[in-house]
Amino acid sequence: MNKIITFGEVLMRLSPRGNKKFIQSNLLEFYFGGTELNVGVSIANFGEKVRHVSCVSDDFIGDTAVSYINKFGVSTSSIVYSKRPLGVYFLEVGAVMRPSSISYNRSHSSFSEITPEMIDWEKALKKGKWFHWTGITPALCRGSYETLKEGLILAKKKGITISADPTYRSGLWKYGEDPKEVLTELLNYSTIFIGGVNEMNEVLGTDFKYSNEDFIEASKMLIEKFPSIEKVFDKVRTAINASWHKIRARMWNGVEFKETEDLEITHIVDRIGTGDAFAGGLIYALQHYDDFKSLQFGNAACALKHTYEGDVNYATVDEVMGLLGGNTSARVNR
Amino acid sequence: MNKIITFGEVLMRLSPRGNKKFIQSNLLEFYFGGTELNVGVSIANFGEKVRHVSCVSDDFIGDTAVSYINKFGVSTSSIVYSKRPLGVYFLEVGAVMRPSSISYNRSHSSFSEITPEMIDWEKALKKGKWFHWTGITPALCRGSYETLKEGLILAKKKGITISADPTYRSGLWKYGEDPKEVLTELLNYSTIFIGGVNEMNEVLGTDFKYSNEDFIEASKMLIEKFPSIEKVFDKVRTAINASWHKIRARMWNGVEFKETEDLEITHIVDRIGTGDAFAGGLIYALQHYDDFKSLQFGNAACALKHTYEGDVNYATVDEVMGLLGGNTSARVNR
Amino acid sequence: MNKIITFGEVLMRLSPRGNKKFIQSNLLEFYFGGTELNVGVSIANFGEKVRHVSCVSDDFIGDTAVSYINKFGVSTSSIVYSKRPLGVYFLEVGAVMRPSSISYNRSHSSFSEITPEMIDWEKALKKGKWFHWTGITPALCRGSYETLKEGLILAKKKGITISADPTYRSGLWKYGEDPKEVLTELLNYSTIFIGGVNEMNEVLGTDFKYSNEDFIEASKMLIEKFPSIEKVFDKVRTAINASWHKIRARMWNGVEFKETEDLEITHIVDRIGTGDAFAGGLIYALQHYDDFKSLQFGNAACALKHTYEGDVNYATVDEVMGLLGGNTSARVNR
Amino acid sequence: MNKIITFGEVLMRLSPRGNKKFIQSNLLEFYFGGTELNVGVSIANFGEKVRHVSCVSDDFIGDTAVSYINKFGVSTSSIVYSKRPLGVYFLEVGAVMRPSSISYNRSHSSFSEITPEMIDWEKALKKGKWFHWTGITPALCRGSYETLKEGLILAKKKGITISADPTYRSGLWKYGEDPKEVLTELLNYSTIFIGGVNEMNEVLGTDFKYSNEDFIEASKMLIEKFPSIEKVFDKVRTAINASWHKIRARMWNGVEFKETEDLEITHIVDRIGTGDAFAGGLIYALQHYDDFKSLQFGNAACALKHTYEGDVNYATVDEVMGLLGGNTSARVNR
Amino acid sequence: MNKIITFGEVLMRLSPRGNKKFIQSNLLEFYFGGTELNVGVSIANFGEKVRHVSCVSDDFIGDTAVSYINKFGVSTSSIVYSKRPLGVYFLEVGAVMRPSSISYNRSHSSFSEITPEMIDWEKALKKGKWFHWTGITPALCRGSYETLKEGLILAKKKGITISADPTYRSGLWKYGEDPKEVLTELLNYSTIFIGGVNEMNEVLGTDFKYSNEDFIEASKMLIEKFPSIEKVFDKVRTAINASWHKIRARMWNGVEFKETEDLEITHIVDRIGTGDAFAGGLIYALQHYDDFKSLQFGNAACALKHTYEGDVNYATVDEVMGLLGGNTSARVNR
Amino acid sequence: MNKIITFGEVLMRLSPRGNKKFIQSNLLEFYFGGTELNVGVSIANFGEKVRHVSCVSDDFIGDTAVSYINKFGVSTSSIVYSKRPLGVYFLEVGAVMRPSSISYNRSHSSFSEITPEMIDWEKALKKGKWFHWTGITPALCRGSYETLKEGLILAKKKGITISADPTYRSGLWKYGEDPKEVLTELLNYSTIFIGGVNEMNEVLGTDFKYSNEDFIEASKMLIEKFPSIEKVFDKVRTAINASWHKIRARMWNGVEFKETEDLEITHIVDRIGTGDAFAGGLIYALQHYDDFKSLQFGNAACALKHTYEGDVNYATVDEVMGLLGGNTSARVNR
Repeated sequence: MNKIITFGEVLMRLSPRGNKKFIQSNLLEFYFGGTELNVGVSIANFGEKVRHVSCVSDDFIGDTAVSYINKFGVSTSSIVYSKRPLGVYFLEVGAVMRPSSISYNRSHSSFSEITPEMIDWEKALKKGKWFHWTGITPALCRGSYETLKEGLILAKKKGITISADPTYRSGLWKYGEDPKEVLTELLNYSTIFIGGVNEMNEVLGTDFKYSNEDFIEASKMLIEKFPSIEKVFDKVRTAINASWHKIRARMWNGVEFKETEDLEITHIVDRIGTGDAFAGGLIYALQHYDDFKSLQFGNAACALKHTYEGDVNYATVDEVMGLLGGNTSARVNR
Repeated sequence: MNKIITFGEVLMRLSPRGNKKFIQSNLLEFYFGGTELNVGVSIANFGEKVRHVSCVSDDFIGDTAVSYINKFGVSTSSIVYSKRPLGVYFLEVGAVMRPSSISYNRSHSSFSEITPEMIDWEKALKKGKWFHWTGITPALCRGSYETLKEGLILAKKKGITISADPTYRSGLWKYGEDPKEVLTELLNYSTIFIGGVNEMNEVLGTDFKYSNEDFIEASKMLIEKFPSIEKVFDKVRTAINASWHKIRARMWNGVEFKETEDLEITHIVDRIGTGDAFAGGLIYALQHYDDFKSLQFGNAACALKHTYEGDVNYATVDEVMGLLGGNTSARVNR
Repeated sequence: MNKIITFGEVLMRLSPRGNKKFIQSNLLEFYFGGTELNVGVSIANFGEKVRHVSCVSDDFIGDTAVSYINKFGVSTSSIVYSKRPLGVYFLEVGAVMRPSSISYNRSHSSFSEITPEMIDWEKALKKGKWFHWTGITPALCRGSYETLKEGLILAKKKGITISADPTYRSGLWKYGEDPKEVLTELLNYSTIFIGGVNEMNEVLGTDFKYSNEDFIEASKMLIEKFPSIEKVFDKVRTAINASWHKIRARMWNGVEFKETEDLEITHIVDRIGTGDAFAGGLIYALQHYDDFKSLQFGNAACALKHTYEGDVNYATVDEVMGLLGGNTSARVNR
Repeated sequence: MNKIITFGEVLMRLSPRGNKKFIQSNLLEFYFGGTELNVGVSIANFGEKVRHVSCVSDDFIGDTAVSYINKFGVSTSSIVYSKRPLGVYFLEVGAVMRPSSISYNRSHSSFSEITPEMIDWEKALKKGKWFHWTGITPALCRGSYETLKEGLILAKKKGITISADPTYRSGLWKYGEDPKEVLTELLNYSTIFIGGVNEMNEVLGTDFKYSNEDFIEASKMLIEKFPSIEKVFDKVRTAINASWHKIRARMWNGVEFKETEDLEITHIVDRIGTGDAFAGGLIYALQHYDDFKSLQFGNAACALKHTYEGDVNYATVDEVMGLLGGNTSARVNR
Repeated sequence: MNKIITFGEVLMRLSPRGNKKFIQSNLLEFYFGGTELNVGVSIANFGEKVRHVSCVSDDFIGDTAVSYINKFGVSTSSIVYSKRPLGVYFLEVGAVMRPSSISYNRSHSSFSEITPEMIDWEKALKKGKWFHWTGITPALCRGSYETLKEGLILAKKKGITISADPTYRSGLWKYGEDPKEVLTELLNYSTIFIGGVNEMNEVLGTDFKYSNEDFIEASKMLIEKFPSIEKVFDKVRTAINASWHKIRARMWNGVEFKETEDLEITHIVDRIGTGDAFAGGLIYALQHYDDFKSLQFGNAACALKHTYEGDVNYATVDEVMGLLGGNTSARVNR
Repeated sequence: MNKIITFGEVLMRLSPRGNKKFIQSNLLEFYFGGTELNVGVSIANFGEKVRHVSCVSDDFIGDTAVSYINKFGVSTSSIVYSKRPLGVYFLEVGAVMRPSSISYNRSHSSFSEITPEMIDWEKALKKGKWFHWTGITPALCRGSYETLKEGLILAKKKGITISADPTYRSGLWKYGEDPKEVLTELLNYSTIFIGGVNEMNEVLGTDFKYSNEDFIEASKMLIEKFPSIEKVFDKVRTAINASWHKIRARMWNGVEFKETEDLEITHIVDRIGTGDAFAGGLIYALQHYDDFKSLQFGNAACALKHTYEGDVNYATVDEVMGLLGGNTSARVNR
């Protein structure tokens, strides 16, 4: 079975239990995550072979991160070690009108020390069939940008499908490169664009709004500007409050526009990583189903992620299919 | 005060906290349950004297189960011991679109070793006024079927009221008897039928649907075929998703059809054992109120069970009455 | 920066985790609270200087209470010690149709030993600009009533603004004084009345209903009878069930009636102390904004409190303002 | 099987986990205990029928206490309810050189409201064969003293064996009676004295030291002064530090002095209730073995209690016998 | 790097936290273990490639077990699934004079359904250099015995080194074969014997005692009777009590007898799996060091295991070497 | 009451519960610490006024740290905020032969951004009577070195007593200055030297051994070289293993050498911060007692710290005095 490869930082997530604030607590739960890893684990939970490429700390925290990834059967053979500490983020989980809050400690993390020489991309991409990257990685530092670029060059050469989720976070991008230029360069290696109007505006320099019409226009313009890109997939979230969301997904595949129905998540357990669950579901499905079914699969995967604690999606293909098949009443499985 | 007797397997329930999966956790909460025990404890919490008859493991787990039952003041004097381990079930609690999942380890449990000689039914039914059984017990193995049958024969002889919840689970019934035949035999000892169209179809060999009309027709046919049965009580559940249900109850008492209003449970805490809470509420109430009030009492008891963790219902008569009296706003009791 | 002073009993709150009953649990979480302390901490979390005046037990529990208050930067320099144990309350948290239940152990607590000589009000009120009291304090015992009265007399003399939340709990008031008389006496020192029709009926001896019209009439009559009182602020709660409420607030400031829009709290985390959060928000805001903005601020503060575990409100001014500014969708703060 | 009856206050014990102080924690474990209850439960765990007589609070805390006692199969049929709250004690567990600390909240507890009329001693002592009391009960208040006295009078009349553990705590005894007089009066109903030189000095007005010689002298004098007393049993503890103790036991049975060997408890789990475990072991054993074997049994039971969390001893007869038989190496039981 | 292969049942271990009994608790920690898996994980933690061969349940519990093994980087590619539940064991952890207690629920577990056809031994032994088995596996059922035998035959054919730990548990062996005959047959495939006088007596039918002299005699006789066996390694434990042990190890390698010094474990954290840690350390070391150094390595690994919770040893080569190098003072690693 | 001032980094400590490794856990306990803060809190727990000067992160983690310090009544008014994250350390707690392990994430922490301009030393040292620093602070970065130096200059000018604990950690000191030069410079402001032969060797360039003779020689040479230094206090630890230590303390006060007796800590709860507890006890005591009593007080404080979880010492003066008075048997305080 050929492999899906993801590349990106692994972060330790630390959070008090329930809806507690740090100031109220002396106990934390920890998980590991990172947008690309979340996508990889999600795909592994659908039964695919996945390898995650990263750089972690050479201490018991880095070992714990690697062990955590092993747990999902995701290959850690291309994870390298550095002397710096693993990146950390602290999360306070909100509810109803209270937003969740995140504080990062990642700017001098082990991953920020990565350089192209540290990764043996030949080995990492061996038997690869799909490579997924996001806009977080080139935003972190020059080393991660250049390492990613080398991976993309080799992946393209090998004919591996490349998907991009060029999430733009203005708080990152501190090492001197221009986000638009870098993302433009990297998108030229990619065929699948997972992102919305915001991300397209960022690389196009446009000002489209959120309507379906604007989404279609933007997608067309994107495909024109980036000839390698074939399809655009986007998820749309309507938040009633921090505990209750509706989600749907839409796409322009170069030929037609389609959108799914809304799924209503009335009691959110954990919303971190739900976008990654969408990407994971989509990437898995595009290898097995047509575009619209894949869009629906991604949306249902995203919905199910809201019911799991932690950053990653545990849903199986059967569970996603059950939901797509209309089992929203969620009878007990015995 | 005369006793209510329940008979059935006691299972240990093991579940990660909150909505975690086993794969995410290393801590489990445990409870004990079992459909007939749940009914018994529920009735004890309404203030009645209850005895539970069962067979548990002769080790510290069996001792813990007995101690757990003692806690509710339910008599354990007719619980016997066997060398096999107590049955166990593992539960992953779902949310929203994600169903809960259960995995059983019960097929060679301590209860599966029970034989009629092990239970002194004279002693167990002493001062009994009501005996409750379910379709799980005769489904497990020949010994449990035969032991139950002996209990029913003696209970009938003693004029004890017998209620039946002939839940049919096709995954059980592996020891060679035909479910329909066995249930038919055992129903002939019973006067109160707690079950719906599904259960009636199973013993009647019919194909009624869920409508009230079909329910009435089925009930009439059931009473015709089983002359001992006087009344049929059924609960009806509409699941919006795993976290949000509506429940109502309906009955045919040989004379008239009645149904309760819907109760809407917007934030389910634990749905396991809610059917048993309905049966428990109903059995308690039928000894104190008329049929329709009893139906309402059962439905309200069922609703309240959704707010308690674990398999059993902790609601008191006052709490059920408060809810029936319209206190759905749930002001703090100080 | 001048200080806000609160005076009242500090209670230890003991509660099983989640929705468990005591009978199901062997682990408790504890917090400290008390209606006036909750108001004080809430205001401190908005950035004001606050001092809480009280009497706690001279043991490691009293020390823990003081340490808990210190945590919020609230001054504990006017807290005195007595030989009796700290008051305790036990809480079982309900859900949906199940009410929460509270059992108190406070009638011979350390606070019940307080006498006017124990508090150096000159020191306690130093640099004070606002003094807040509630109807719980004079209800507990003669000593607490008299101590409060002395504080009010001095506060009035010093020109400190006095707010009153004359909550009436009939279960208290056991030491022989007439609640109406005592509350009447103490209200005469107060300018801000935080309470609703119930509380006004109690001191007016009237029978107004909950309508806005009656609220206005009652407020007018109150201000007539108590010339020191300038403004009346009230919060109105509509409970769909124990897990889902709507809240709004209304006021009569002697000139005009205003009411806020409803805020809908669909997934309550903890409703204890939400009234205190309203008072805290209001008192903070009245020092910075006009009456109606203050009313809105109080209502939004109250709404946010429903999302925090424990008795006190952790919301900051930014968070309240965010909610008032329409951020109900609660995006993650990164 | 005849019953052993114990009478005394039930307290809720609240303690942070491990060696934490309250100031470091927000989670508590709770148990129920009380010296006489501890003795009763210990004996029930040896397989005897036990009834505990007490007065608890009429709220969910009192219900939880009763449920806790039921768990051990101890009869709660003579437990009555009062409006006051259940007594509570807070425990910080020390280690090595750090002593454990306890803070009580019991002086106005539910038990302190007990009066002789509340207890139906005829019913409580039905089929009784042994009655055990301690010096804590008459020390609490007049009501508990008088209720105990009535119980003792009837027990003596019925020929029930009476054992006394006249523990003297000077911090109690606040209601006006003289400890020495009261204890003297009550000891005259008792045949078994469980206590050491301190307790004998208290009732004899002597000043004996801890040596075996003094113990023998004191015992002889005690038996002379209290003709009903036949035997004196004492445990002797040598504390290396809070985590490491040695214990032995000694006796004067009117005929001979004997003492056991030392048992060394190198890693104490919980020392609360170890004295009660000695009394429980002794009382059980005196009904089955000779005096010295009983002394050894009590000492071994006491040793084992140090390895259980909570106030009560869980050791079984087999476990005590295993230890007496020399199994100190504690191989795993499979 | 070539692989070490282990084969045996995977059990779920369930245990209350600390020294609690099940009757005191409602929270359990779970781990996975099994004597052969423990050995395998231990060796993987020393940096070797390991594959564990087993049969687990086809449900979320089996998935969790596989995920747990993946965590350590141990290959799970030869683990197969069956419809029966995973074996479980319940553990109460003793202290001082109180033994730990274990109750098993394994007799109809998923592993008990294993048959030779289910395991592809060619694949499982691919690149194998060492195969380890224990006496538990052939004791469980005919299927596990026959499956093991096939593995041993192929391993021998491939020239893989075979080590045996023929632990004899009389409580197992219920399917009809004679333990002595079966163990004799299987030992003939083995070159390394890890076991003591007890195990040698079992297969030799002798009655040697524990002295070094008897150990040497028994070893010589064993090697004579089983010509394939070259070396005998044994660990010797002296238990002061359940919390405090001394361990040493001894060997007869066909040429000379050697024994290590005692290591004193004064504060045992968890003794389950310490024998497996000895075997794991020994097997690792025999591939890198001489016999006596390997014996010392095994003994030190065993000592360190006593300080880890759960069934498996987390010690690394550096940590074992540190201890062998005399670092018993255990300075903090920074 | 005049204040004691401490200055240094505040770190968040994250550790699995009990003796678990990170790889075994998903729950962490957190505390805050830092060698100088630990000293300050320890002194505050003896009843002195303390102010801690530091720089924390401007996020909810920094707020939680400040709140944690407030809890002890230590003044946080001179704590400033920076945009970088708070330093973190991860701790795995060893046992017996297994050392504890620490991994730091502090090299780009909020404290590393401190510069002299950020601290208003006039305000921070207001009413100061004692200033304590350690060798960690100048080792971290140029900014912390220079900020400390400014504080020392002003403290000396104000006649504040200065104590130094010039702990030398070679793993720090990465910003380019020579440790020996810097420490020499800073020691010239100090009068009390808290450290041993290692630290003296580091600043003297000598090679003294651990004997008392060498300690005395080194102390004399130190005082000769640093005329401001008057006294040298040292603690000596003998580790039997990670769970069992002996400690004593020794001093050279320019006139005489003294050493305390050994205190034996047989069951260590937490050894982190025990050196700081020694310094805290000593600094407190030197303001109240003579040199030798102070040395004993410091040693006893250090011993007691081993019994508390977390970095700081909770012992009170009474508790230390109790231990000095010979109460090592640690009777329960009721």
